[in-house]
Amino acid sequence: MLLSVIQTDPQFGDVSANIQQAVSLMEGKRADLYVLPELFASGYNFMDRSELDQYAEPATGPTFELIARFAAAYSCYVVYGFPERADRIYNSSALVGPSGLVGTYRKVHLFYRETTMFAPGDLGFPVFDLPFGRVGMMICFDWIYPEAARSLTLRGARLILHPSNLVLPHCPDAMVTRCLENRIFTATANRIGREDRGGTDLSFIGRSEIVSPRGEIMTRLGETTAGAGVAKVDLSLADDSLNRYNRLLADRRPEHYKG
Amino acid sequence: MLLSVIQTDPQFGDVSANIQQAVSLMEGKRADLYVLPELFASGYNFMDRSELDQYAEPATGPTFELIARFAAAYSCYVVYGFPERADRIYNSSALVGPSGLVGTYRKVHLFYRETTMFAPGDLGFPVFDLPFGRVGMMICFDWIYPEAARSLTLRGARLILHPSNLVLPHCPDAMVTRCLENRIFTATANRIGREDRGGTDLSFIGRSEIVSPRGEIMTRLGETTAGAGVAKVDLSLADDSLNRYNRLLADRRPEHYKG
Repeated sequence: MLLSVIQTDPQFGDVSANIQQAVSLMEGKRADLYVLPELFASGYNFMDRSELDQYAEPATGPTFELIARFAAAYSCYVVYGFPERADRIYNSSALVGPSGLVGTYRKVHLFYRETTMFAPGDLGFPVFDLPFGRVGMMICFDWIYPEAARSLTLRGARLILHPSNLVLPHCPDAMVTRCLENRIFTATANRIGREDRGGTDLSFIGRSEIVSPRGEIMTRLGETTAGAGVAKVDLSLADDSLNRYNRLLADRRPEHYKG
Repeated sequence: MLLSVIQTDPQFGDVSANIQQAVSLMEGKRADLYVLPELFASGYNFMDRSELDQYAEPATGPTFELIARFAAAYSCYVVYGFPERADRIYNSSALVGPSGLVGTYRKVHLFYRETTMFAPGDLGFPVFDLPFGRVGMMICFDWIYPEAARSLTLRGARLILHPSNLVLPHCPDAMVTRCLENRIFTATANRIGREDRGGTDLSFIGRSEIVSPRGEIMTRLGETTAGAGVAKVDLSLADDSLNRYNRLLADRRPEHYKG
């Protein structure tokens, strides 16, 4: 399968243009499964909860409609981040395929001012079976908690789809560790640009990437330009056999773990 | 406190010379706490269990006696790896101070042919209170299991002492992730050189290092030379407060973790 991470340069609040940029980048480089950034259509740096409320939409809202049309037209899958209006407002991602919504994930570990605006995710770390294999999602700051990728791996995910709006420098290299310690693929789609709003000035670091179970960086984009990174991946290579004596997951010893 | 990682070039089976090299390197650069490599006195690449049996010694055996004399003479602490003779033979590390043995750790995750010779550790991941703060130990391949460092962190360790005999290239960079995700210090003492014995040819990668809770590499040695790396560390900086909204450990959400 061809896997793609789409690195965009969203302008806060310019929803139509932001979606159009993502669609153009996807159309420019065909793939079977695309990952877009966190909150890719709305932008990230909401002033407060009432501003966030203006942009929140249901999982099958207008952004979904546009992406679902794309996925149907090109017979592909797309994962993207959006502010989800439900019982509360969540920082969510949706996995959409040719036949519509496959599933959603609600960010479990909220970062910084997100904690004042979004509700913490209440769905745990679900996995989904696609024609290519089993996948799961996490969003941005979830990377720093090894339990996120581990939980998905122990539920059988062979690929983690990771919409992000990274501002700290560490995640791209840390994802190599996530792949090695779980023997899975990861696809981190980040954004570039800057949002200086309401006294909070955030710059996003780009460096979207796809990493293999052996920790190889299969594609990694730059820090300042939008674009698409594509890698051909075979999810059956996400196998926990390290050598003839060690199976990474089977050799875990949970009776000695605290957590 | 001054923390030191000692990178040695042991020759298989030459126990006296291997200990002497470690002691010379420690004497050459004074510190409050030294970390030596895994199995630093015996060498690593045992042909089989009966050869291992010749080198195994109790936690208070002759290697301990020499190291304890050093720790008493210089009022310091030393951590080192050794093949521990007990009810079975374990791949262990000892923490020794001016007054003698503080505690031991038995490697929980055995690597490659170790699985055919050593018994898997049965003590879990204990922690120990030193004058500088609380510490824990893990050995070499334990690095690939995030549960090892996490378990120590959740028990209050602010520094992980990590005797190693690394052959794979990934650990030095992965330890940066271990520090970031736990907000702790780590000290990895590795060896250099090669052991080609009984059809198994192993080369060790050096790169011993000390890493801070912010993921800074405070010292990192080379791949081919023995030596000592020293860093001044303040364990009170191992604090889980990331910013005014996030506390790394307090923000964990175990109800959503599988493990």
